[in-house]
Amino acid sequence: MTRRVGVWLFGARGSVATTTIAGAAALHHGIPPAGVVTELPAFAGTGLIPLDALVFGGHDVVETPLAKQVERLTSGGVLPPGLDRLITADLAEAERNIVVLPAGGPQNELIGRMAEDIRAFRLRNDLSQVVAINVASTEAPYDVPVTSAAELREALALPDVLPASSVGALAAFEAGAAYVDFTPSTSIRPAAVREWAVEKGLPYGGQDAKTGETLVKSVLAPMFAARALPVHAWSGTNLLGGGDGATLADPRAAESKSISKERGLAEMLGEVAGDVHIDYVDPMGDWKTAWDHVLFSGFLGVRMTLQFTWQGCDSALAAPLVLDLARLSALALDRGHVGAMPFLGFYFKDPIESTEHALPRQYDELLRWTRSC
Amino acid sequence: MTRRVGVWLFGARGSVATTTIAGAAALHHGIPPAGVVTELPAFAGTGLIPLDALVFGGHDVVETPLAKQVERLTSGGVLPPGLDRLITADLAEAERNIVVLPAGGPQNELIGRMAEDIRAFRLRNDLSQVVAINVASTEAPYDVPVTSAAELREALALPDVLPASSVGALAAFEAGAAYVDFTPSTSIRPAAVREWAVEKGLPYGGQDAKTGETLVKSVLAPMFAARALPVHAWSGTNLLGGGDGATLADPRAAESKSISKERGLAEMLGEVAGDVHIDYVDPMGDWKTAWDHVLFSGFLGVRMTLQFTWQGCDSALAAPLVLDLARLSALALDRGHVGAMPFLGFYFKDPIESTEHALPRQYDELLRWTRSC
Amino acid sequence: MTRRVGVWLFGARGSVATTTIAGAAALHHGIPPAGVVTELPAFAGTGLIPLDALVFGGHDVVETPLAKQVERLTSGGVLPPGLDRLITADLAEAERNIVVLPAGGPQNELIGRMAEDIRAFRLRNDLSQVVAINVASTEAPYDVPVTSAAELREALALPDVLPASSVGALAAFEAGAAYVDFTPSTSIRPAAVREWAVEKGLPYGGQDAKTGETLVKSVLAPMFAARALPVHAWSGTNLLGGGDGATLADPRAAESKSISKERGLAEMLGEVAGDVHIDYVDPMGDWKTAWDHVLFSGFLGVRMTLQFTWQGCDSALAAPLVLDLARLSALALDRGHVGAMPFLGFYFKDPIESTEHALPRQYDELLRWTRSC
Amino acid sequence: MTRRVGVWLFGARGSVATTTIAGAAALHHGIPPAGVVTELPAFAGTGLIPLDALVFGGHDVVETPLAKQVERLTSGGVLPPGLDRLITADLAEAERNIVVLPAGGPQNELIGRMAEDIRAFRLRNDLSQVVAINVASTEAPYDVPVTSAAELREALALPDVLPASSVGALAAFEAGAAYVDFTPSTSIRPAAVREWAVEKGLPYGGQDAKTGETLVKSVLAPMFAARALPVHAWSGTNLLGGGDGATLADPRAAESKSISKERGLAEMLGEVAGDVHIDYVDPMGDWKTAWDHVLFSGFLGVRMTLQFTWQGCDSALAAPLVLDLARLSALALDRGHVGAMPFLGFYFKDPIESTEHALPRQYDELLRWTRSC
Repeated sequence: MTRRVGVWLFGARGSVATTTIAGAAALHHGIPPAGVVTELPAFAGTGLIPLDALVFGGHDVVETPLAKQVERLTSGGVLPPGLDRLITADLAEAERNIVVLPAGGPQNELIGRMAEDIRAFRLRNDLSQVVAINVASTEAPYDVPVTSAAELREALALPDVLPASSVGALAAFEAGAAYVDFTPSTSIRPAAVREWAVEKGLPYGGQDAKTGETLVKSVLAPMFAARALPVHAWSGTNLLGGGDGATLADPRAAESKSISKERGLAEMLGEVAGDVHIDYVDPMGDWKTAWDHVLFSGFLGVRMTLQFTWQGCDSALAAPLVLDLARLSALALDRGHVGAMPFLGFYFKDPIESTEHALPRQYDELLRWTRSC
Repeated sequence: MTRRVGVWLFGARGSVATTTIAGAAALHHGIPPAGVVTELPAFAGTGLIPLDALVFGGHDVVETPLAKQVERLTSGGVLPPGLDRLITADLAEAERNIVVLPAGGPQNELIGRMAEDIRAFRLRNDLSQVVAINVASTEAPYDVPVTSAAELREALALPDVLPASSVGALAAFEAGAAYVDFTPSTSIRPAAVREWAVEKGLPYGGQDAKTGETLVKSVLAPMFAARALPVHAWSGTNLLGGGDGATLADPRAAESKSISKERGLAEMLGEVAGDVHIDYVDPMGDWKTAWDHVLFSGFLGVRMTLQFTWQGCDSALAAPLVLDLARLSALALDRGHVGAMPFLGFYFKDPIESTEHALPRQYDELLRWTRSC
Repeated sequence: MTRRVGVWLFGARGSVATTTIAGAAALHHGIPPAGVVTELPAFAGTGLIPLDALVFGGHDVVETPLAKQVERLTSGGVLPPGLDRLITADLAEAERNIVVLPAGGPQNELIGRMAEDIRAFRLRNDLSQVVAINVASTEAPYDVPVTSAAELREALALPDVLPASSVGALAAFEAGAAYVDFTPSTSIRPAAVREWAVEKGLPYGGQDAKTGETLVKSVLAPMFAARALPVHAWSGTNLLGGGDGATLADPRAAESKSISKERGLAEMLGEVAGDVHIDYVDPMGDWKTAWDHVLFSGFLGVRMTLQFTWQGCDSALAAPLVLDLARLSALALDRGHVGAMPFLGFYFKDPIESTEHALPRQYDELLRWTRSC
Repeated sequence: MTRRVGVWLFGARGSVATTTIAGAAALHHGIPPAGVVTELPAFAGTGLIPLDALVFGGHDVVETPLAKQVERLTSGGVLPPGLDRLITADLAEAERNIVVLPAGGPQNELIGRMAEDIRAFRLRNDLSQVVAINVASTEAPYDVPVTSAAELREALALPDVLPASSVGALAAFEAGAAYVDFTPSTSIRPAAVREWAVEKGLPYGGQDAKTGETLVKSVLAPMFAARALPVHAWSGTNLLGGGDGATLADPRAAESKSISKERGLAEMLGEVAGDVHIDYVDPMGDWKTAWDHVLFSGFLGVRMTLQFTWQGCDSALAAPLVLDLARLSALALDRGHVGAMPFLGFYFKDPIESTEHALPRQYDELLRWTRSC
């Protein structure tokens, strides 16, 4: 019998999670796996678990059924019409694995109860491994006042030491799961949290998936660098609606996002003028439009420009990457990889323990690691 | 005493040649070498000849003095105001090395006379080597009726066996010069011409420098491929004025260009719908605007788009690449490289004897070759 | 009892016709009349017939049922999901009024039979008037060899004197219907056809509805004129799929379109450089993207640019205008208007018997005429 | 002898003023008057004073000579190369008429001294009239604590009752000059200032010239309205460098600008989502790029978009309008017009005492008024 791997989603009823779960089900029914990088021929024969071996569950704070979310995403043009009827059974299975997140109390108790949910998921579904992925809303930056796992362990008797994302990460580690942060939230940023993962012998990765504007930046910026064309200013405006947009309408959450978005540009091109705006435009629904304007010089200082407009649906770009990250993290668990997974930098705006932002080099690194057994 | 290398330009009074000559002079006067790839730190210590060791000459059919061309390019915003006064002496020196192209007669005689011009240039300027680069106007496609160097040698007693670009290439080879084609013209396409170069023990490279729209394509197309995002259609419109635009207003010349432009996309992404237009818009002067529209799918077939607008000045993008190609070809001559130089693919839309079009891989290959001594 | 007006569509099963019929039905069910200009408050109380008094029928060469077309347009995102179930009865009613176009024979007989179809439609549905609107595929330009109605009457004993669009126009006139051409086809262009309408005492209007790129041009061009900013070049690229795109992939049909598109610009701005491309991009489906690039001068000749990208669905932009034109032409019939209707220029790229292309002036003229009773 | 009219510029050494003065001089030397609306044939024979009857002077806080500013604008591509040599005498004449703005002291004294400067300008140059135009940097919003001219007169014994722009307006009125505000500053916004103008029997107009993004909006928004297409969101990003950009990098000055920019959209389309950003991007120099994204619905609620990118040089767009406003205000003085000049709304984002923002209607109103004698 094939072994099965659990994918535990923090934010299991959000747009990204729902698209991931519905999409994985759609693939079983023969829809081609567009956007799933690990399905490219280059990744064949690398020991990655098959996509249909993934079993979904997760935590969320809301109770809206997945089927309802699928309906909403279908009318918003994110999921194809007619899919809902095809995947009713798959949704019902995932629905049974979603737990409403318990609230309040000391954070060590909360972590304990959440880890228990993950362990129960593993047992109930007979899973060989579990990979936890954070696809919940972006949090505001959060200052964690401790610097070691030991200190953290003590501090957790109090409430509010950690933001929700870090609580989730610790719950994953307590349950023996790998952890990947798809968002720019605090989660595994504190050294104490990373130390905790290492003590448990587990891998972690992230952060902030690059699905649109930053993805394009990560190939255009190296182009300017390779051609020795000085970039003077890079300005960007992102318009988005939907739940993600509403979250980012909060300037503190947007700050987390902007810091993460801008890191790569500075590391690829050095100091460059220009702002990045993230505007919540409710009528855009689940769609996002980004406009970027790049001012650069050619020979003898002649000024030139490149502009691009990206129009995409973030959930539909994100979901196949969640599937990739689940498979790749399961492989890391198999190989006993402990600590940061910098070879996943291909997927992230703010790649953990890596300063490489150029997409083609990140791709090569990912492929090299995947094939390296 | 430092050795000096000759750069023999076919089309020596055109916009690209003039910008190259004026620009090289400007660099001697301290203007930073923006756009010169071989000046990047990665290329330091690789035995490339210094930029100020380059001496310029060439053939052209027109007699307008370089200084006049510099004036025109300055008022068109291609060259910075005030440069002309700085570089008067440099222009005069190059002027002395430009020969008005002889017309008519059997092509073998023409080749002989042109080779003699190149040899005289070398002797007069005490040059250790000469590199010939074709920056003349794009020709219409041309059918060369012979398949070997031997057959070609015989056929050349007749007129019009070869187009002007191939005549120039043979003249370069006869004079012991390396040859690089910056355009999509016929030049070294015929097997017979390549065989001729090999018989003479000389390197050749090209074709059709990627300076704008195609450059951007060569990083965006691999991005879609690496992310497993199917591209359905890629459409492009190029608006340009100036001499290059006027040439390409001739549908036959535009055909050479379009074939060359479209090759890469097909090799990077397979069959993709969409046309590429090259429009002559006289009031654009030396400036070019390209708009590209890419229709692709995300997960589950959701349609998305990427558009970009590139606004640049072709001559100012091309000139520093001419300097690069001169230095790199001189290095190839030094190393005794014979035949095609596929490691120069980084610079070309239609890289000779190479099917690699992804810019980052081309850059790595270039760097590897340059450092490999 | 309210009087009812017939709308006879040539091309009754095409995308525009289907969207019009389905949309009119949707409005009965409470969907707001976005895009229907005659529903603006300014048009209230002007004696226009209510939208629900319109009854649809028409000719087509294909037999695919309307319901099938509605399904196709729904999956292409032109019609909202769920609409089909709401309007089943309305579609069935229109279906009964669609006649498969008879083929072959002398054109006078064909005109006779088609006029008979229109008269039967009027009787069967108890209609006070009929307005015929051509929404069939764009034809290639067609040279009609006669110059008066009298000559034409004689020539019609032969086949192929007129293109299909003009045959339709004459059938409409024979049946006492007003006629409006939504396309750039030949239809009412020949003087002989117009004379025929006048002899019958009927109004006609057109041509080539402005729904996208040309609509935007018709407000931007007057802006440059009003601000005394000289426009040097105006270039445009239109990407479209669907049936309309496939038709326009034929260069001869595209020629009709381009002539019509370019007329306004010349009349608004004088001689301006730049081409207009119409590219068939099959994967675009029913959607169209137009990119325009305008090069103009400010004070002292400084060059500046305006670019725009329009992304729309032609059928969804066209359908409400068909409803407008039906109501307005019915009003013209009521008022006994004979001959050209230049006051409908607001709707057209190539307004019949008018040289006014500036949208705001056209709007004012339309409103003035509508209110003038 | 022809009568001459004085143009007194607040901010007389800024980019707009310098371009105006240099440009007016260039027109005397035969450069065509691109962008000067009142030179359109429609305005011929309306009694406007000839352009070469305008004499320039003004106040500024800086002492950099005009000739220096012209040099800077020439190297930034705003003024054509070679112009400086042509207009040396004209610049010297204007230079003599520029007064360094006195600082400090009670505001009534300051107003007195400034009015004296304007009167001296008139006498010295034998001018029949003077028109004062504010082209100084945009101020932050300012709360003026009085509501009538009488109260204001008393309060002016104190310092800082009024911002600099209002002080300038009062000085103009005291000197018997018309006043037009080209900026969104406070100037004539307070009722007390307007009352003061009326008491003096003088005309005033403004505010905030529409030269780029807002100009385009003022024709596109009426297009959507006329076509009954609901606009859901209109988002804009403006990138600009130069002095204007540096001023607007101050969020309080940007606030004045944004309020002014957004007023028209709301009055043309009602409530619409979306933000407007004004980003200071120093390397843009005197150039501005605006990107706007409009999300609207077609028939049956189908979502569509229009995007535009405007790339212009604000000073070169503004200067000819300053010439227009000078001539038109001189005509208003001639006619004895007292109080607000709403017929100048064509020029402004925030037209004083007018709610009409649609450019074509504003143009018609301007023309009607100009011809109405």
